[in-house]
Amino acid sequence: MKRRNFIKAAATSGLITSTALASGSVLAKSTTTIKWKMVTTWPKNFPGLGTGANNLARLITQMSGGRLKVKVYGAKELVPPFEVFDAVSRGTAQMGHGAAYYWKGKTAASQFFAAVPFGLTAQEMNGWLYHGGGLELWREIYEPFGIIPAAAGNTGVQMAGWFNKEIKSIADLKGLKMRIPGLGGEVLKRAGGTPVNLPGGEIFSSLKTGAIDATEWVGPYNDLAFGLYKAAKFYYYPGWHEPGTTLEALINKDAFEKLPEDLRSIVLNACKITNQDMIAEYTTRNQQALDTLVHKHKVKVLKLPDEVLNKLQSLSDKVINEVAATDKMTRKVFKSFKSYRDSVKKWTDISELAYLKSR
Amino acid sequence: MKRRNFIKAAATSGLITSTALASGSVLAKSTTTIKWKMVTTWPKNFPGLGTGANNLARLITQMSGGRLKVKVYGAKELVPPFEVFDAVSRGTAQMGHGAAYYWKGKTAASQFFAAVPFGLTAQEMNGWLYHGGGLELWREIYEPFGIIPAAAGNTGVQMAGWFNKEIKSIADLKGLKMRIPGLGGEVLKRAGGTPVNLPGGEIFSSLKTGAIDATEWVGPYNDLAFGLYKAAKFYYYPGWHEPGTTLEALINKDAFEKLPEDLRSIVLNACKITNQDMIAEYTTRNQQALDTLVHKHKVKVLKLPDEVLNKLQSLSDKVINEVAATDKMTRKVFKSFKSYRDSVKKWTDISELAYLKSR
Repeated sequence: MKRRNFIKAAATSGLITSTALASGSVLAKSTTTIKWKMVTTWPKNFPGLGTGANNLARLITQMSGGRLKVKVYGAKELVPPFEVFDAVSRGTAQMGHGAAYYWKGKTAASQFFAAVPFGLTAQEMNGWLYHGGGLELWREIYEPFGIIPAAAGNTGVQMAGWFNKEIKSIADLKGLKMRIPGLGGEVLKRAGGTPVNLPGGEIFSSLKTGAIDATEWVGPYNDLAFGLYKAAKFYYYPGWHEPGTTLEALINKDAFEKLPEDLRSIVLNACKITNQDMIAEYTTRNQQALDTLVHKHKVKVLKLPDEVLNKLQSLSDKVINEVAATDKMTRKVFKSFKSYRDSVKKWTDISELAYLKSR
Repeated sequence: MKRRNFIKAAATSGLITSTALASGSVLAKSTTTIKWKMVTTWPKNFPGLGTGANNLARLITQMSGGRLKVKVYGAKELVPPFEVFDAVSRGTAQMGHGAAYYWKGKTAASQFFAAVPFGLTAQEMNGWLYHGGGLELWREIYEPFGIIPAAAGNTGVQMAGWFNKEIKSIADLKGLKMRIPGLGGEVLKRAGGTPVNLPGGEIFSSLKTGAIDATEWVGPYNDLAFGLYKAAKFYYYPGWHEPGTTLEALINKDAFEKLPEDLRSIVLNACKITNQDMIAEYTTRNQQALDTLVHKHKVKVLKLPDEVLNKLQSLSDKVINEVAATDKMTRKVFKSFKSYRDSVKKWTDISELAYLKSR
């Protein structure tokens, strides 16, 4: 049988709908392509976060030899940012990239899979997710929505934020209008401040015009990109409210289950690679941006006083305990999270912390 | 054409050398298999390290849909542990799993890709390797040996080790016979001690019989498995000599280049996944084992005094500077490593360190 006839036979036989090309290799390479859409909560190509989503899509396409192609859509391109969860749930898109605390309206327990004030660092979070039962719980809470979640990026410890005045005591937070979302915002409220939520694109002008007195965003890499040093004078650390923010991939369960086993493995493992690669990128870019902020833009980098941090931690404990009481599933997640945090803290104190103090 | 005839036609046509199976999927699945051997420096299935190598092999097989099958050999099964590098270089095995400091006899620069006293943590190491030019340099130094290296595991901060007496000042290290390999051993020598190198399997009996006075190994997870608490009384932290030990995969360059593009991507990315998964596993298992050591076996966990750590750091700086002067390539690697370490330290101090101190 001649090559042309053979391929024609293959194509028309209905037995396989893809053709295997030899091209000198001993390995069959399919020309059939599955096309997936990935909607994201980030502006298209936003440094670190949006580029992380691009990286995830590229890895899937590359490792699958083009059998599964994933196209990334920035916020608003296909759906608004906060409709990413619903879009993946109903299958409008097969994948999404965002952060789990955006979906607290769907399930309060989701907040434990993004950022918890005085919670886990990036390294500890991966320990809990991959070897401490965390990922299984995350899957359980998204199961009713037909979504499979996966960790797919981490920013590391964030900065406490930009302030237009010095914070010398907890009283300085009273009356402070600050852009700070999620559980951190709730903690600020308990300290007498007013948390507001603003999309990234509106932060700079709000801070510049005095509509807000302070803001947190991510860290030097992203904060420099937004020019926040031009809008506020004091840059505080550490990011007590987001000590290792996990980004997430959302996968439509039906679409996932239609994939053959090797592609399923590729999709889930591409999330793992993105998870590691993003924190590696932030670790490198944050130090470079910090250097630029301090030396070029003469930014004052200040540490929040211990008294302020201690007070924020006790307020955080209260807020988290209240959230944990929301429903049965949230209590279950909190129990696992808290048990891991209390135990890993003992190890981190004599490993990472003791080492970093000695260096 | 019936299914049976069609497959027969495909198999005999000579146009493709593998058969594409439909099995209800739109994707071709090859039945042709490439078989690779992976030799390792670890005992077969050794917790964390040997199981990490197994994990790497499994991931490659799984993501390739069985097109590339990797079989793992423990130390001595195919070649002795310290011949892994040569075996991969000459193609006896297509892959290896070990640690780069074992190959300092081949190239002194390799030591910077495993563990450097007072060097980078796991998170910082990944920043340097993936986004700071480290991996490119690593590839450059293995290039003459026909080997492609990749980070494929990390233990995190190790413990300083087990001692049969308290270490109250640097003078207590004088005359101390301790199992401690690599650059850490050289530093101990400068402090007046006697470093010895022993394979893992001989550590327990040497410490128990008093042939050595002290030993470092990895951390609670692995140290508990070896029963070291039965052989020495004092367990010290932090692991100043190995703050984020990177394990490595070695890939034979010729074998790699014969792979189609998707399998190349799968092999390199499987290394990345293993790199992250191992530190996540150590983070979880170390805390559990620490709890067992302290509460069940009543081990005394002590911090090395600041004076001792400070002295060890200045000795380490001297040793590393001397190693860096070995040859042109080592100087080049050291320059990149040092520049990254100095810069990232500033960021880590106000992120991970400041946060962990506040928690």
